[in-house]
Amino acid sequence: MSRSPGRKQENHKISRELFVLTYGALVAQLCKDYEKDEDVNDCLDRMGYSIGVRLIDDFLARSAVKKCRSYSETADMIAQVAFKMYLGVTPSVSCNSATGNEFSLILDKNPLVDFVEELPAERASLCYCNLLCGVIRGALEMVHLAAEVSFLQDRLKGDAVTEIGITFLRKPEDKKHRR
Amino acid sequence: MSRSPGRKQENHKISRELFVLTYGALVAQLCKDYEKDEDVNDCLDRMGYSIGVRLIDDFLARSAVKKCRSYSETADMIAQVAFKMYLGVTPSVSCNSATGNEFSLILDKNPLVDFVEELPAERASLCYCNLLCGVIRGALEMVHLAAEVSFLQDRLKGDAVTEIGITFLRKPEDKKHRR
Repeated sequence: MSRSPGRKQENHKISRELFVLTYGALVAQLCKDYEKDEDVNDCLDRMGYSIGVRLIDDFLARSAVKKCRSYSETADMIAQVAFKMYLGVTPSVSCNSATGNEFSLILDKNPLVDFVEELPAERASLCYCNLLCGVIRGALEMVHLAAEVSFLQDRLKGDAVTEIGITFLRKPEDKKHRR
Repeated sequence: MSRSPGRKQENHKISRELFVLTYGALVAQLCKDYEKDEDVNDCLDRMGYSIGVRLIDDFLARSAVKKCRSYSETADMIAQVAFKMYLGVTPSVSCNSATGNEFSLILDKNPLVDFVEELPAERASLCYCNLLCGVIRGALEMVHLAAEVSFLQDRLKGDAVTEIGITFLRKPEDKKHRR
């Protein structure tokens, strides 16, 4: 039996097309499972969260990044290192608040929707790529950063760009009054 | 708003880790949906089939391969071009029959199971990667090659290697008597 030559350095890349179609199969299955779009969105977010919780170790090991010193640096890291590493795209980042804890990742092109033309009319509230929000949320939580992550714009819904909003939640010690 | 420089040549690769974890979420969801392993296996195969049917165009366009002239050449093409392109690995190929229509793709390492240690005891009949069989079957059907594709060995089940069996089904005109 022939074998490929031993390679210590593994190929960490796979084809985006296979991923996109497999992701599509996952979303389609959840749409079969849940009638309400909100339930599909929640499920994708939860799945993403579990993925993010596991992916962060891989990210820290492979990126060898240092600890970020600000929310702004963290948002840049997600866009320029993590998105690049995992999805092969680099969203632009904008800060949305004077308090410096709200950011947007803006994707001109969303690599997860290559084969999706538009959402079916009966699925108008579906956040097709909500898994990504969960992944970011889960990964951030593992580095002790609580955040809310959600889609603010979505090209699948006719918006000009796809925009993911990240709101870093103040740590208790940042606040004068704990809720 | 800053934007990345326009790139005509798109990055067709994404991280394997993200794919593997997303695939794991899909299998886990199906295990919630279906009690019987056989139903999960069937569902993965059907999903894979739909993916293969769509992926073949991408494969033919990107690989620019010529028409294969034998089953053997086709099996080599799947292993050396398609697996390499989509999963970043190259299985070895062996021919299993004197009639020349049965082949095995043998993977020392299965890129889809990085984060899976072993199947839970109650899921002993699960073909975790059955999606792959469906993908191959669907893609082959689109180039007018009917085939049966299934796992013959699986490292997840304690076998030494992972082995995918492909049996090309004779075309009616190849047979003296049609069934």
